[in-house]
Amino acid sequence: MARVDEVEPEHLLARRVLDEPLVLFRENDSTIAILEDTCPHRFAPLSLGRLRDGAVECGYHGLRFSGTGSCVFNPRADGSIQPGLAVRAYPSVELHGLIFVWMGDPANADPSKLPDLSFLDGASSNDVLTGYLRTEANYELIIDNLLDASHADFLHPGLLSTGGAYGRHVPKVDYAGDEVCETFMLENLPTQPAVTPYLSEPGKPAHQKMVFRWVGPSFVYISGDIWQDSDPSRVLISRSLHALTPESNGATHYWFKIRRNYDLERPVPNREAGVLYAFGQEDKPMLEAVAKRMGGKNFWDLRPAVLQGDNAQVIARRHLRKMVNAEQPQS
Amino acid sequence: MARVDEVEPEHLLARRVLDEPLVLFRENDSTIAILEDTCPHRFAPLSLGRLRDGAVECGYHGLRFSGTGSCVFNPRADGSIQPGLAVRAYPSVELHGLIFVWMGDPANADPSKLPDLSFLDGASSNDVLTGYLRTEANYELIIDNLLDASHADFLHPGLLSTGGAYGRHVPKVDYAGDEVCETFMLENLPTQPAVTPYLSEPGKPAHQKMVFRWVGPSFVYISGDIWQDSDPSRVLISRSLHALTPESNGATHYWFKIRRNYDLERPVPNREAGVLYAFGQEDKPMLEAVAKRMGGKNFWDLRPAVLQGDNAQVIARRHLRKMVNAEQPQS
Amino acid sequence: MARVDEVEPEHLLARRVLDEPLVLFRENDSTIAILEDTCPHRFAPLSLGRLRDGAVECGYHGLRFSGTGSCVFNPRADGSIQPGLAVRAYPSVELHGLIFVWMGDPANADPSKLPDLSFLDGASSNDVLTGYLRTEANYELIIDNLLDASHADFLHPGLLSTGGAYGRHVPKVDYAGDEVCETFMLENLPTQPAVTPYLSEPGKPAHQKMVFRWVGPSFVYISGDIWQDSDPSRVLISRSLHALTPESNGATHYWFKIRRNYDLERPVPNREAGVLYAFGQEDKPMLEAVAKRMGGKNFWDLRPAVLQGDNAQVIARRHLRKMVNAEQPQS
Repeated sequence: MARVDEVEPEHLLARRVLDEPLVLFRENDSTIAILEDTCPHRFAPLSLGRLRDGAVECGYHGLRFSGTGSCVFNPRADGSIQPGLAVRAYPSVELHGLIFVWMGDPANADPSKLPDLSFLDGASSNDVLTGYLRTEANYELIIDNLLDASHADFLHPGLLSTGGAYGRHVPKVDYAGDEVCETFMLENLPTQPAVTPYLSEPGKPAHQKMVFRWVGPSFVYISGDIWQDSDPSRVLISRSLHALTPESNGATHYWFKIRRNYDLERPVPNREAGVLYAFGQEDKPMLEAVAKRMGGKNFWDLRPAVLQGDNAQVIARRHLRKMVNAEQPQS
Repeated sequence: MARVDEVEPEHLLARRVLDEPLVLFRENDSTIAILEDTCPHRFAPLSLGRLRDGAVECGYHGLRFSGTGSCVFNPRADGSIQPGLAVRAYPSVELHGLIFVWMGDPANADPSKLPDLSFLDGASSNDVLTGYLRTEANYELIIDNLLDASHADFLHPGLLSTGGAYGRHVPKVDYAGDEVCETFMLENLPTQPAVTPYLSEPGKPAHQKMVFRWVGPSFVYISGDIWQDSDPSRVLISRSLHALTPESNGATHYWFKIRRNYDLERPVPNREAGVLYAFGQEDKPMLEAVAKRMGGKNFWDLRPAVLQGDNAQVIARRHLRKMVNAEQPQS
Repeated sequence: MARVDEVEPEHLLARRVLDEPLVLFRENDSTIAILEDTCPHRFAPLSLGRLRDGAVECGYHGLRFSGTGSCVFNPRADGSIQPGLAVRAYPSVELHGLIFVWMGDPANADPSKLPDLSFLDGASSNDVLTGYLRTEANYELIIDNLLDASHADFLHPGLLSTGGAYGRHVPKVDYAGDEVCETFMLENLPTQPAVTPYLSEPGKPAHQKMVFRWVGPSFVYISGDIWQDSDPSRVLISRSLHALTPESNGATHYWFKIRRNYDLERPVPNREAGVLYAFGQEDKPMLEAVAKRMGGKNFWDLRPAVLQGDNAQVIARRHLRKMVNAEQPQS
C-alpha cells in the first residue's frame, strides 16, 4: 500500500485504503506504523499533525498516539488519559521496498498471504523497476487488464504489438486454490517493438512463453521468456509482481516490481518511465473510461459479452467474488 | 444532433444524446453511422478506438462494428463471431448540413418529423448562418426562451431592445397538432440596434412581424419581417430553425440555421459570432442560472407566476408533456 | 451576514444564508433591503438583474421588486400586477458596519437578539479590526474552535503558544439562559509571541484573564486582559465579537470585530491580515479537514472522546441543539 521510501523520517504519509483514511510514519526504532488517520477527539486527520518522539501528535489539540494506536500523551488538565483512548492500528510488513497492510482483524493477519517476491532475491538495484499509479477504476477492472494479453495489439501497438498473435492464441488456464494461471506458448512470433533491440537476431521471429498468474484477491504475477532458434539458451527473462490496493470502490493504488535480465544499460528511472507510459498513458485512460461507462454498476448485471480467451479473467472474477463473500460477517 | 462537418473522414465523434453515449463516423460510402458508444465486451467507449475499413474498431480488444451495429470482426481465437454480438445503431438523416438522429424504436423513425428546412432552399452559403451551443439547462427552458420575445429588452438590450414594445404587445397564439404559433404585429417600433443599419431610414420607426413557431418536441422556427412606410416593398427578412437535442435532463445541445436577406456583406463567421454572442453570452448564463436555481425540480411544482404574454410557452410546455407521456411504455 | 460596505450603491450583492439565496441592495433612501434571490416568474436570480429606482429589476423579463419584496412594475401587456406577486423580504439591521438578517418569521424578529457591540462604542476606526472568512465547515465546528483556547499551542504555535498553559488550565464555566461563559485565569504565563512586543517587560511572565462567551445560536465574544506585576495598571485589553452565519449545513460565513488598546501603530489592513492569517491559514484548513472527515455525519453519532476542558463546548453544543429543536414547527 506504499513504497518504503515514501515514509520518510519525521514525515506523516496519508493514504486511503478500502475507503479508510490511514496515516503512516516511522516509530523511533524506525519500524513503520499504520494508524487510522482520524483523531478520536475532534476527528482531525492525524496526518495534519506532527511526529513527536516517535508518536503522532494531533495538530489540533495535541493528543499523541504511538504506533500501537494508544494515546500516550494528553496535554489537557492533569494529563490523565482515559482508558481506551486510542485509534485503530493496522499490522504491516515491509517486503523488498514495499509496505503491505492488513486491514482485517489483526488476529487474522497471515504472513502466508503476502506476495512471493523471491524473484527479486539477489537482484541488484539496477535489475529492478518499481512503479506506482493511482487509477480511478475498481481493482477488478485492473485485474482483468493484467490477465489479458490480447489488448496489447490494440492499446499498446507501439510497444507490444504481436500482429494479433496474442489474441489468436487461446492460452491454457489452470485454476487451483486462490490462483488462476494462464499460459501462452507462442512460436515464431513477430517480436514486439519493446523487445526487439535485445534479441540476437532482431529481424527474425522469436518464441515466447508468457505466464499470467492471479493470486487472489489482488496480486498478479507476470513472467515472460523470449528466445530465438539461433540461440535457444539466450533467453530474455522478465518476472514481475503487480499489487493492487483498493483505495475505494472506484479507485485503486497500483504498484509494480519488475526484474529483467535485459535492457539493463539505460538508467533505472528511464526504464521505469517506459513501463509507466504503457500503464499510465495507455491502460489507465481506457480503464478509467470503462469505469465511467459502467457508472458503478455491477459487471455481470451489465451482461458483458464473453469472448474466447476471456476464461482466466472470468474465473478470477468469480473466485474473487467467493473470497469477498466468505469474508463478510455472518448474519 | 451534429453538424455534418463535425464528422470528418477517419474521425470518431462522441456525443451524448438523451443520456446515451453515441459515436458517429462515416462508413466507406461516406454515409454517416451512429452507434451506441459502448463496446458490449468490456464497456470501452468505441469512440476511443479507431476507424478500420469503414467500421469502428474498439481500442481495447479490437472488436469491430459496422454502421449497422453488427460485429464484423473478432480478433480472438478462431475469429468466430457469436450470434447477436452488436451495438445498437440509430437511424439518422443529413439535412442542409445538420444530422438528425432517431433515438426511439427504428421502426417508428418517421421522416415527416424532420424539420422543414425548405427556407434554406436556393440559399447561397453566404446567406446562411449556422451555430452550435451546449447549455447546462433542460431543453424546455430553452424552448421557453425561444418562444419569448419580451426578454429581448432586458437580456439583449444592446442588440434587440424595442423600448419595451415586445413586452407590451400581447401576441396572437395559435395551437394545432403538435404546433404552437405566436404572432407579433408591431407598428412604428423604435427599431432594434441590430437591424437599424440595414433600414432605408435608420432614424425612423419600422413595422415588424415576428412569428415564433414551436413544433414539438424540440424545434422552434422564428421568422421576422421588418419594413418602413417610406418603402413597404423593401422588407428585411429573417427565417430560422432552432433545433434542441437533449444531452440529458440537465443539458442541451442547441443548433441554429438562419437565413437573412440583409447584413450579407460581413464575413459569415463574423455574423455567426454575433448571433452566438446573444445566445452564448446573454441567454446561456441566464438559462444556466435558472436551471441551477430550479435544482432539478419540476417547473410546475415550483409554482411559477404566469404573466400575460406567457401563453405560447405555457401551451407548448403542456403539449410537450402530453407528447412525452404518450411515448412512455404502457404498463 | 455582510459588511455594510459590501453593499455598494447601484450594486446587487448575492449571498446564501441558511441555504437560501439572498440578494442585498440599497433602496433610494439608502436603507438596505434583503430579498429572496429568485424571481417568482421564471426563477432567475434577481442578483443577475439591475437596480432601477431603488427596486431590483429581474434581468430576464424585467419584473421589478421593491425592498418590501412586492412587485412594483410589470413590463408586460397592460402592466397590471397580479395580487401577491412578490418575493420574500427579510428584516435586517445595520450595526457597527455589519448587517444582521432575520431569516425566521418577520413577526418574531427581536432586536434583543442582536449582538452587543457596545464594546465598539467610542472606538476610532484605527482601534477596530474587521474581517470575513468563508469556511467549508458547519458553524458548530467553528463555535467549538472559538470556545477552545487549548488548540492555540498546537494550531497557532507561532502566534499564540503558551507552553501548554491553556491546555493544563481547566477554566471556570458558567451556563445561564442562552449563554455559556468560560473564564481562564492564568498567572505567570510565558507570554504569547503575538503579544510580547506590547508588554513593558517583554521577557517577563504575564498574567492573563480570558473570557470566551457563547451567546446562542451563533455569537462568540472573546475578551482578553494581560498585565504584569511590574505595572498592574497597564493592561493590554482585547474585546471581540465573532459572528457566524451558516451558508448551509456544510459552510459558514464568519465575521469578526476586534477592538484592542495595543498594537495601534501598524496600518489597520496589516493588523487585519494578521488576524486573518491565524483564522484563515491555520484554523480554516483544520476545520475543513475535520468537516470532510465527519462526512456530514452527526457529531455525537461519531462518538467523540470528551477531554477535561471540553465542558464549555459540550454544553454549548447541547444547548444549541435545544434552541434549534425549539424552533422546529410542531407536528
